[in-house]
Amino acid sequence: MNISEIKKRLATFASARNWDQFHSPKNLSMGLAAEAAELLEIFQWLTEKQSVEIVSNEKEMAHVKEEIADVFIYLVRLSDKLNVDIEKAVFEKIDLNEMRYPVELSKGDATKHSKRQRVDEVIASKKQKKGGHN
Amino acid sequence: MNISEIKKRLATFASARNWDQFHSPKNLSMGLAAEAAELLEIFQWLTEKQSVEIVSNEKEMAHVKEEIADVFIYLVRLSDKLNVDIEKAVFEKIDLNEMRYPVELSKGDATKHSKRQRVDEVIASKKQKKGGHN
Amino acid sequence: MNISEIKKRLATFASARNWDQFHSPKNLSMGLAAEAAELLEIFQWLTEKQSVEIVSNEKEMAHVKEEIADVFIYLVRLSDKLNVDIEKAVFEKIDLNEMRYPVELSKGDATKHSKRQRVDEVIASKKQKKGGHN
Amino acid sequence: MNISEIKKRLATFASARNWDQFHSPKNLSMGLAAEAAELLEIFQWLTEKQSVEIVSNEKEMAHVKEEIADVFIYLVRLSDKLNVDIEKAVFEKIDLNEMRYPVELSKGDATKHSKRQRVDEVIASKKQKKGGHN
Repeated sequence: MNISEIKKRLATFASARNWDQFHSPKNLSMGLAAEAAELLEIFQWLTEKQSVEIVSNEKEMAHVKEEIADVFIYLVRLSDKLNVDIEKAVFEKIDLNEMRYPVELSKGDATKHSKRQRVDEVIASKKQKKGGHN
Repeated sequence: MNISEIKKRLATFASARNWDQFHSPKNLSMGLAAEAAELLEIFQWLTEKQSVEIVSNEKEMAHVKEEIADVFIYLVRLSDKLNVDIEKAVFEKIDLNEMRYPVELSKGDATKHSKRQRVDEVIASKKQKKGGHN
Repeated sequence: MNISEIKKRLATFASARNWDQFHSPKNLSMGLAAEAAELLEIFQWLTEKQSVEIVSNEKEMAHVKEEIADVFIYLVRLSDKLNVDIEKAVFEKIDLNEMRYPVELSKGDATKHSKRQRVDEVIASKKQKKGGHN
Repeated sequence: MNISEIKKRLATFASARNWDQFHSPKNLSMGLAAEAAELLEIFQWLTEKQSVEIVSNEKEMAHVKEEIADVFIYLVRLSDKLNVDIEKAVFEKIDLNEMRYPVELSKGDATKHSKRQRVDEVIASKKQKKGGHN
């Protein structure tokens, strides 16, 4: 993916319209959340099964693609303003998640999934208990 | 950006933990919105100026990077599940925005920005009025 | 519900801590969205059925109640700052919804629900088509 | 505020249209987040000062009122489905906040506000350190 080309086109777009003045990180974070909510709205009344089947509905998918693009655009714009290298941040976060959720501890059923403790929380809570006993 | 590598690592991560069962587009859209809100929270009490200056605060920026990565991860995962080519969708959306917001109509001050009519809405509203007069 | 007592306690709370300076409608709308997302997070990985059954889980319900209260608190605070009479606004909106979604047009199955046209949109689209033919 | 009347009208509205089937807590939490984001969108490009001044713009305020009502409606509907007494939950949360953020510790300037530690976190962190020294 040519992220620097995307970044450049968005910067040119904004500056040509004098919109840079509105693009503070605070405002961009609001735009991002608003666009994420528009994606949410598409799936709001669908069952999970229907949300999977949406791929075969061309008209709905056109809408989905536009909203995915909107979220991406705000995210790139925000990252550009804050000098964040998204790719680097993403790989670091994936590495972190792999440590936090070791396969053997994380494999499991649906009911536990939402409450799964991260391994660092398990360790922290053990340490704290130990301290408390002394 | 090596988006296919990111996609692959996220797919492997989920399948190793049997988490694919939770990754319906509906659930992923909820995850995306929740992560976007965590970014929002960082900027909630900051002035716009302070939100710009956050770049010089290393500790805060570590937090920002992690949240940006989280949003990106959910977006890639959702796109993967729905067979959406993000890069293609983004360039199509930028093209569309360039048509919708022509430079000469869109240049302007802050107060008008939030209410700026897209050029297609202007055209639609003119057509409708014309129709109404007949 | 003693909404004026709630309003008063929140105003006193904020002014005692000098927090009124942070409570612009813009910032409060961010707080509201962030709290709504925390509710969303609770239900993110649950099936719809599990989300119904959460009522019998006391610990989870304590969390749900706290997040519902947080959303309510931001909404009351925002309404107070903007002199909005919530109760009046709510009854007006319910009246509007009853006109927009007449029972005979709105009864229906799940697949149509998300795309249900409001009756005013149906009327508008008919008018527009008529105009276009002239 | 006549909350039980609001609750009743919303329940009647949904059941007359056979919409109860869609109103799982999971789906309602999505609706709530989506509506909160529509409020957010109104303030997205406004400065904090402009967001205060919106009260004098009748047309904008009509929009604000409708979105506030929408958030409220989803919150009442969700609370009804989960048997939550909103008023009780709100007063309990205000009591909790008053303990968590004592006036003498919480009075302060904007830069510290977003990172303000709750008093219980301060206590917890002190305890933990103590434990660690033993």
